[in-house]
Amino acid sequence: MKIAVLGVGLIGGSIGLAARSRLDAEVSGFDPDEGLLEQAVERGAIDRAAGSVSEAATGAEIVFCAAPVAALPGLATEALEATEDAAVTDVGSVKREVLERLGEEPRFIGGHPVAGAETSGVENARAELFEGARWYLTPTPRTEGVIYDRVQRAIAEMGARPQAMDASDHDRLMAKVSHLPHVLANVLVAQAEDAMDEDSERLPEVGPSFRDATRVAGANPAIWGDIFTGNRDAVAAEVDAVAERLRATAELLRGGNHDRVAAWHKEAAERRRKLLEAELTGGPLQELRVIVPNEPGIVAEIALELGRGAVNIEDMALYPAADMRSGAISLYIAGEEEAARAEALVRELGHDVSRVDR
Amino acid sequence: MKIAVLGVGLIGGSIGLAARSRLDAEVSGFDPDEGLLEQAVERGAIDRAAGSVSEAATGAEIVFCAAPVAALPGLATEALEATEDAAVTDVGSVKREVLERLGEEPRFIGGHPVAGAETSGVENARAELFEGARWYLTPTPRTEGVIYDRVQRAIAEMGARPQAMDASDHDRLMAKVSHLPHVLANVLVAQAEDAMDEDSERLPEVGPSFRDATRVAGANPAIWGDIFTGNRDAVAAEVDAVAERLRATAELLRGGNHDRVAAWHKEAAERRRKLLEAELTGGPLQELRVIVPNEPGIVAEIALELGRGAVNIEDMALYPAADMRSGAISLYIAGEEEAARAEALVRELGHDVSRVDR
Repeated sequence: MKIAVLGVGLIGGSIGLAARSRLDAEVSGFDPDEGLLEQAVERGAIDRAAGSVSEAATGAEIVFCAAPVAALPGLATEALEATEDAAVTDVGSVKREVLERLGEEPRFIGGHPVAGAETSGVENARAELFEGARWYLTPTPRTEGVIYDRVQRAIAEMGARPQAMDASDHDRLMAKVSHLPHVLANVLVAQAEDAMDEDSERLPEVGPSFRDATRVAGANPAIWGDIFTGNRDAVAAEVDAVAERLRATAELLRGGNHDRVAAWHKEAAERRRKLLEAELTGGPLQELRVIVPNEPGIVAEIALELGRGAVNIEDMALYPAADMRSGAISLYIAGEEEAARAEALVRELGHDVSRVDR
Repeated sequence: MKIAVLGVGLIGGSIGLAARSRLDAEVSGFDPDEGLLEQAVERGAIDRAAGSVSEAATGAEIVFCAAPVAALPGLATEALEATEDAAVTDVGSVKREVLERLGEEPRFIGGHPVAGAETSGVENARAELFEGARWYLTPTPRTEGVIYDRVQRAIAEMGARPQAMDASDHDRLMAKVSHLPHVLANVLVAQAEDAMDEDSERLPEVGPSFRDATRVAGANPAIWGDIFTGNRDAVAAEVDAVAERLRATAELLRGGNHDRVAAWHKEAAERRRKLLEAELTGGPLQELRVIVPNEPGIVAEIALELGRGAVNIEDMALYPAADMRSGAISLYIAGEEEAARAEALVRELGHDVSRVDR
């Protein structure tokens, strides 16, 4: 099988590595950055560095376009023009623009592997990047069945879990579970900074809830400018919907009915649990709080002990106390039995530990 | 010195322990829950269990009211009535209601130690809970100087950092940096759950940004119902302000001007850094991303190595990949030099590590 990869960063490079090792494919690659292209050859991500898009695409059965979102429509068009039978697909995390341009093309399928957000660059490319990852495909009524089948089969063999979805549904979904939290984080820091300007003194300790809620504020500017612009309608709609919900919440709060407020709050805990558990296989997520001195080595001691006990930590949050000499660690463990084991292990180490009841 | 503690949970118990060990005080305690009162004596949090508020308060120089927010005005009133010269203070995280009731009382000062949110119960009480912690005091023009001085001195000796602030300013500030993130988390899960109901399929992987942004959704229902109700005006105002900002953001996004959107996003990163660094002493916060297999023992290995190298981890976030077999860890390290040392140590362990440039 012959594969072409246009753009050899983290995603393109990983596609090359996965295609070579799992599909036994011959992979040609192109990138406008010659240094990157060389690196991709050195890493074994591609067999052959091509001098142009058409040189890379010629003879390929599937062409993967793995450039920044804004460049994808042009790149995919070039790839379609350079080939006669090839399936052409892309990996952009927003599908609207590329589908507007190429939705009528029988050989084009929009794609979006949900993987790799935690890093970037061909130096981090790896063949296992897509193992178990959702890979959305957004065929249209015009997409040829044989083309869809070819792409779907290839990404499944690379370890991904393909799922077909309408392009607009995809963009709305991403707006809701990924793009919206980023917008909220940005807005929250802006709101808090205003307090800094108003008060004569600098803002005091912001606390763990603020830290968690704003962790992604301003993250990866190179990528997010494109995403926010590319998915602007869906994101704006989500943002407006949240604004509406917030107005209703403000009314609920002003009403001052303790029972109604408490019920609303309790419901949120239930909802989060339901949403997160959709991802987990080990059982309901349990939270343990451990009180510890905040010094080098403590996280290690605990994690090591759980590792020895074969308990996997699904998620972790550190809450240093103001004196930075003590604090708490939240450990999220999947499954009742694992959590009970973890609790016992941590207690044996001599730390105060309690189950957080939500 | 004689101290009375009304309510012997985590905060009341810790005040007792700190007062006994650091002020060499004689501490009497009262709690409507007799079991708790007994536990407090056993733990050494109080010298003497009193049978009533007035029995506990009689003869005390300072009375600390450490009951749930809604019960504080009544409790403090009782304490004032039972004493003639005692300073009476409370530890509620919202000050509006208690000040409305007692703002004219020369012997009452509102207080709020920012500590202990990570746990609860007298079994977790400890003398060091307030070490380095901010402790807000909200005197009014009617507060007697000698009373203010007595309370201020006592909490400073317990290790806290007292700061006087107008009660309404305090409540607005808490609304912004603590209560608001909790509201946003609740609203975000509600918004995402709607997608679950609309689509025939269950919601797919929600991603790390969603997880972080909603970590506190529905947290500690027993406490938060009171806080949201007690601080309803300030919180509602913040919520409305964020709704307004979100509307403006939706317009910015719809405008589709890439440069303006990118600039807005980049500014958010700067703002967050500024806000968090206000808390740190070690230098600017650096983020390292480590790519690792997602298996028991890995977090331990890394944390242990950093511990050996005397690098403190200020914050940590785990990003398991979809297959739960690999993933990334974000390590937040204070200071350029420490971060560079951490990077080298992690690399020596054979993991891919990169500095996240925001």
